[in-house]
Amino acid sequence: MIRRQTRSRPVPALLPQQLADVRAQTLALAGGLSGEDCALQSMPDASPVKWHLAHTTWFFEVFVLESHEPGFRPFDPAFRVLFNSYYEGIGNKHPRPERGMISRPDLDRVLAYRREVDERVQALVRDPARLLRVAPLLTLGMHHEQQHQELILTDLKDLLSRNPARPAYRDGWPLTPVAPEPLRWLSFEGGIRPIGHEGRGFAFDNEQPRHDVLLRPFELASRPISHGDVIDFIDDDGYRRPELWLSAGWDSVLQGGWQAPLHWERGADGWSTFTLRGLCPVSRDVPAVHLSYFEADAIARWMGARLPSEAEWEVACGEEPVEGNLLESGIYHPCASRKPARPGRPVQMFGDVWEWTRSDYGAYPGFRTAEGAVGEYNGKFMCGQYVLRGGSCATAASHLRATYRNFFPPQARWQFSGARVARDA
Amino acid sequence: MIRRQTRSRPVPALLPQQLADVRAQTLALAGGLSGEDCALQSMPDASPVKWHLAHTTWFFEVFVLESHEPGFRPFDPAFRVLFNSYYEGIGNKHPRPERGMISRPDLDRVLAYRREVDERVQALVRDPARLLRVAPLLTLGMHHEQQHQELILTDLKDLLSRNPARPAYRDGWPLTPVAPEPLRWLSFEGGIRPIGHEGRGFAFDNEQPRHDVLLRPFELASRPISHGDVIDFIDDDGYRRPELWLSAGWDSVLQGGWQAPLHWERGADGWSTFTLRGLCPVSRDVPAVHLSYFEADAIARWMGARLPSEAEWEVACGEEPVEGNLLESGIYHPCASRKPARPGRPVQMFGDVWEWTRSDYGAYPGFRTAEGAVGEYNGKFMCGQYVLRGGSCATAASHLRATYRNFFPPQARWQFSGARVARDA
Amino acid sequence: MIRRQTRSRPVPALLPQQLADVRAQTLALAGGLSGEDCALQSMPDASPVKWHLAHTTWFFEVFVLESHEPGFRPFDPAFRVLFNSYYEGIGNKHPRPERGMISRPDLDRVLAYRREVDERVQALVRDPARLLRVAPLLTLGMHHEQQHQELILTDLKDLLSRNPARPAYRDGWPLTPVAPEPLRWLSFEGGIRPIGHEGRGFAFDNEQPRHDVLLRPFELASRPISHGDVIDFIDDDGYRRPELWLSAGWDSVLQGGWQAPLHWERGADGWSTFTLRGLCPVSRDVPAVHLSYFEADAIARWMGARLPSEAEWEVACGEEPVEGNLLESGIYHPCASRKPARPGRPVQMFGDVWEWTRSDYGAYPGFRTAEGAVGEYNGKFMCGQYVLRGGSCATAASHLRATYRNFFPPQARWQFSGARVARDA
Amino acid sequence: MIRRQTRSRPVPALLPQQLADVRAQTLALAGGLSGEDCALQSMPDASPVKWHLAHTTWFFEVFVLESHEPGFRPFDPAFRVLFNSYYEGIGNKHPRPERGMISRPDLDRVLAYRREVDERVQALVRDPARLLRVAPLLTLGMHHEQQHQELILTDLKDLLSRNPARPAYRDGWPLTPVAPEPLRWLSFEGGIRPIGHEGRGFAFDNEQPRHDVLLRPFELASRPISHGDVIDFIDDDGYRRPELWLSAGWDSVLQGGWQAPLHWERGADGWSTFTLRGLCPVSRDVPAVHLSYFEADAIARWMGARLPSEAEWEVACGEEPVEGNLLESGIYHPCASRKPARPGRPVQMFGDVWEWTRSDYGAYPGFRTAEGAVGEYNGKFMCGQYVLRGGSCATAASHLRATYRNFFPPQARWQFSGARVARDA
Repeated sequence: MIRRQTRSRPVPALLPQQLADVRAQTLALAGGLSGEDCALQSMPDASPVKWHLAHTTWFFEVFVLESHEPGFRPFDPAFRVLFNSYYEGIGNKHPRPERGMISRPDLDRVLAYRREVDERVQALVRDPARLLRVAPLLTLGMHHEQQHQELILTDLKDLLSRNPARPAYRDGWPLTPVAPEPLRWLSFEGGIRPIGHEGRGFAFDNEQPRHDVLLRPFELASRPISHGDVIDFIDDDGYRRPELWLSAGWDSVLQGGWQAPLHWERGADGWSTFTLRGLCPVSRDVPAVHLSYFEADAIARWMGARLPSEAEWEVACGEEPVEGNLLESGIYHPCASRKPARPGRPVQMFGDVWEWTRSDYGAYPGFRTAEGAVGEYNGKFMCGQYVLRGGSCATAASHLRATYRNFFPPQARWQFSGARVARDA
Repeated sequence: MIRRQTRSRPVPALLPQQLADVRAQTLALAGGLSGEDCALQSMPDASPVKWHLAHTTWFFEVFVLESHEPGFRPFDPAFRVLFNSYYEGIGNKHPRPERGMISRPDLDRVLAYRREVDERVQALVRDPARLLRVAPLLTLGMHHEQQHQELILTDLKDLLSRNPARPAYRDGWPLTPVAPEPLRWLSFEGGIRPIGHEGRGFAFDNEQPRHDVLLRPFELASRPISHGDVIDFIDDDGYRRPELWLSAGWDSVLQGGWQAPLHWERGADGWSTFTLRGLCPVSRDVPAVHLSYFEADAIARWMGARLPSEAEWEVACGEEPVEGNLLESGIYHPCASRKPARPGRPVQMFGDVWEWTRSDYGAYPGFRTAEGAVGEYNGKFMCGQYVLRGGSCATAASHLRATYRNFFPPQARWQFSGARVARDA
Repeated sequence: MIRRQTRSRPVPALLPQQLADVRAQTLALAGGLSGEDCALQSMPDASPVKWHLAHTTWFFEVFVLESHEPGFRPFDPAFRVLFNSYYEGIGNKHPRPERGMISRPDLDRVLAYRREVDERVQALVRDPARLLRVAPLLTLGMHHEQQHQELILTDLKDLLSRNPARPAYRDGWPLTPVAPEPLRWLSFEGGIRPIGHEGRGFAFDNEQPRHDVLLRPFELASRPISHGDVIDFIDDDGYRRPELWLSAGWDSVLQGGWQAPLHWERGADGWSTFTLRGLCPVSRDVPAVHLSYFEADAIARWMGARLPSEAEWEVACGEEPVEGNLLESGIYHPCASRKPARPGRPVQMFGDVWEWTRSDYGAYPGFRTAEGAVGEYNGKFMCGQYVLRGGSCATAASHLRATYRNFFPPQARWQFSGARVARDA
Repeated sequence: MIRRQTRSRPVPALLPQQLADVRAQTLALAGGLSGEDCALQSMPDASPVKWHLAHTTWFFEVFVLESHEPGFRPFDPAFRVLFNSYYEGIGNKHPRPERGMISRPDLDRVLAYRREVDERVQALVRDPARLLRVAPLLTLGMHHEQQHQELILTDLKDLLSRNPARPAYRDGWPLTPVAPEPLRWLSFEGGIRPIGHEGRGFAFDNEQPRHDVLLRPFELASRPISHGDVIDFIDDDGYRRPELWLSAGWDSVLQGGWQAPLHWERGADGWSTFTLRGLCPVSRDVPAVHLSYFEADAIARWMGARLPSEAEWEVACGEEPVEGNLLESGIYHPCASRKPARPGRPVQMFGDVWEWTRSDYGAYPGFRTAEGAVGEYNGKFMCGQYVLRGGSCATAASHLRATYRNFFPPQARWQFSGARVARDA
């Protein structure tokens, strides 16, 4: 299990090494993959690994080097358009659904791009004055890169899952099973409570400003929904009973032919599921993963419960340390809690699976976007998505915090997404 | 201008007459329309007028007569499926996109269906004990019917707009123009404030329970966004600047080729717009209508403002009487305010145009759906939609109240939808 | 059974009465239909009955009156665009998939349009010189109208079939069943044989010029494929065996979920099928109808046969009189042959069902299109369609001849289309 | 320029070496491509190069080794499904649109697959008796492989064209321009003429049986339509005049936004076009390429001509030797004729561009498909496609003959397809 270092004010002098570490982590994730593994795009929502490797580099080239490096010259002028994701302020961009049309530059050249930009950034920030100036952008770029680390794993998993051979990303299975954690209900008081980020340490604009919310007393499940819960839901005809679903969710069930979470396959011996370590039997004790918001909502309703609001989640999380089954544990799949719960406290708030909340992804009161192209980072996506909290087995520990807001459309299932239920007190 | 009667506890003895009035109002709206006008369906989101006439009758037949009429026999057994809208609990339903495939029953038979069900309902409730038992369903059915009265107008308008001749639903133009209301900013204090419905009078489940919200001080525009504002937005290239739009909104602009609100046509003499009285010049002074949430949001951003939350809207509305340019005024199009504003108070909170808020349509804390099929009325749609407040020129006065929550997807433009801007204090 | 009058050189003096008869026949077909029946469009390939009534009138207004009537003024200037089908040479046209958006003009006004144009055309041709000039256009217009008579029935049938009540166009069933005609193989010699139209009488440009073809000896079935053949094909898993199908046909089977001909429904008592007289049991002895080219081809292959070429069909037809179960018989559905076969001769070459041939619809050697907009009648559709021969129960007798070439895309099933098999000698 | 060896009866003893040569040619075409170049799929109609490399090997493994190798064991059991193209008789197949989802097996493993199957086939046929038995399958497999050699180039070209950098497959440009060949009309007599394959040498089933056709006198252009002709067509508004187009072709123009042949880009200096050697200026003198049937037909009509039938083409070709700008010339793009025309004879009948004919792709009289799965090779595609003749700059010389029938749907443009016009005498 991974425990994140203590939260503290960023120290610029440490940034170059932190940056190098993050960049190295990305490369390590791509290690062992062929150029072919890295070039293919499984669907418009996902991107090729090579694109992630290049786009995270583009971020430093365009936002750091282009403005701050004396005598800046681009590594390749075509990359400015080719690896722009969605920044309208930067100008043209290559269409997202066509990211899988790019065999050239090949992986080797993208790796060379990474190396050169890394060297030039590191050279740039040897000057302490320049380091101070670009420190906020370096920090943003590191967190941006950590988001793409997670996407590298989720997008690759989606690609490999479409191969009839169900090939593994990493071999072996690092853990032995443990006994399940029974679901207990934990009580929390209502009242005016602050949520959102403030003060020291990096946070995205969408976590700010810290502000008061008014909560009613509520209860939260001690652990996430488990695969056992999902099996019981399936066995109780959950995927065939419209009264359990939101109307749009029921449409997704019918149109997508959903009968189980994404990647589940029913065989003679019961359910198995595709993982980054190949096809594995479904274990009842593991937090349920690859659930859409619709499924999380329906399972909660079937349990006589509901999803928590993001404020409830954050308040319940409190000062819980950022530790758990995170990216650095190298498991790349959720697993049952290996740590005894403390009295009155939930387990697995961080890591394993992102937890859907009932909160649509909107602006906090007083929200302001940043100036310039980086202002496109979050605000313009505040429509039609739901907030997830807590990180997953593919999230870097140093990327997370209790106030962190992830967001996806309600039908999305290819992320490591699960849920934890709540109810009114 | 229409002023709604005072809000009061429903008196069952008055219900039969109230019901007869509502049913007559629906028929009056269909008056002058041919069987052909009533049979066509312009798009999957809209329904034929004939379907609305039948479905509102179906509601009384299935929810009232079927359970409470001794010796109940259906008017036509096929109608149970044919005119079910979305109640999974009732069983099968005819697919929504195929409502325009039904030439038989024809309009005359649907009108006969209305007459028979009306007579049987009235006969049923002559017994006071039965009236007491079905009073809640009658009340719900009346409000349900009033919702469909509005849809009759909006769906018919969408159909007529697709006719190259741009035919009018009603002839003539009943009003002379008036001087515009300048936009003023009105201030409201923050704090804990109650919203939602409680106590006497009918309200939908989605307006309940009444509960406290925590507001920060805010300002609200004294009047809705006007067509003049929209023209200025267009002239400032508003439909061509992605930085003004939500990302999903910009996708809608590109895919839909949006260059102005729905129904606007640019001619040599400037803009004109299709109305239920035919094609008319666009008047700057009229509240802007046929805006999607995306357009409302973009125009607000361009004005340096934002949309209000639904709580802000409701608090600002306060005890404002339900009066304005509503269905009963018979204009069927928004018009400039004809009433001087009171100091510190907004105008046109009710009527003219539904006002988009920034609030996604979700459950209030403690929300409970009703038991049985009528429980499908609201809750299952709480995903991916935004709340509109205040009613429009097509909303019946007795249908509205300050707590009323309408909702549509963010790209919807065929309703009488506009907006009013807000900003942080 | 209907027998067509003898083929002869058109006599201009008879044209006005012939025209009046054809126009009256069209009205008779629409008799008993409501405005609603006539206004709805079931799919982009089909048109509302009202549109057919108007477009056939438009043909005379635009091609006859507009050029030949002194002081011509249009009945309604908007109709020139609204009721243009596909004549690019005439200018704009209303999009075909939106023909079902038109509630106004209503049916009454379209009927008034018919009356006025009819009167003005008849007035025009009282002058013998003018009659001579417009005679070719009148003749074309009559045949054009007869094509739309058939489409009125097929498009209406498609619409009514989508109504869950399966309503009948005409009540009752006019015929008692007869004993089946066994399939016999008839032999035909090879050699150089002329096909195509020449000489007296009207024919479309696509039937010309008459030209020689080289045939090999062949055999033709004495009767069309019957419903009994189709039932045997179904029972032999014909709809589940890809080896019986063209590749594109198999795609249609999978995508369309085809398990039987269009309109067939399997019940506890066996197959029934929707007809213009409502839902009826499938009779084995009736020529199979609502077959796509793909189904006709697959059934032929399953029978160890093939479809004939159009030249084979025409040569085998020879001087067969144009008589059979045609529009005038008023049955509107195929039926078993009621006439004993002559030795060595096929039955039901005309009427009952159009017979798919293996010939793609292309230009005859030396084909020339007419000058002007009427030149768009046929030639521009010579791509991706297959030729059908012999007319159906919805084809007017005076419209047919042995050289007549009908054509539809291979997946089309909503016409009265069947087939007759052939094989190499 | 490449000249094919004289046509002769296949000599089994030569087959092993011929097979080795063909297999080596395929590998040579893939030479210089990265795993990424070979793994991507540009559209459902095209396949990744790696898939072509594997599928052509699968053909020998499944049709030759599986039935004839003692103790056969598959290289990889999963490949039987993964690399089946469309043979329903073999069982399941991986869906065509998902061929681009396969990063594993990677290119190296597919190359190992090729080597092993090659070795095992060569070992098998060292036994002369076995060689005799499998000779027909080896021959079919070689021709099958040559078809995929052409597809390797056309599918790769389509992929590279979607890369904004327009990367070249091969560098440099091997030819200097030559003077143009003026278009002359060559006359051919009518009468009964034999077409189709007979006798010695390999031919596909769709070229058989040889049979008589009846032709009318006709004229054929001495050379294909040139880029100069296309430029004149464009300058004469050819892409904006519906009267020049088939109706379905005009739909393609509007839906596809066609303004020029595929791959053309208009710049300040005129037209350039993407080739396998990168972006190049369009030369007027080169045979026009990347034309759909619709464009070929429209340009012919604009020239006052028409496309030839495939019988006319074959008769005009006569005993013309199979030589020209073919695959072996290594140019991979059409070029102007470098050889003086002989009197009365056309140039460039073979090579440069496939020539669309007006003939739909159907069965010759007496056509019989082969038994078993190889019988799916041709017959089941005989619907909705048009015949092309003469081979292209991507066709192997030994693969071609005058009777060879290629076929594609009328809207296809990604092949090396052009046309040659004809007219009635």
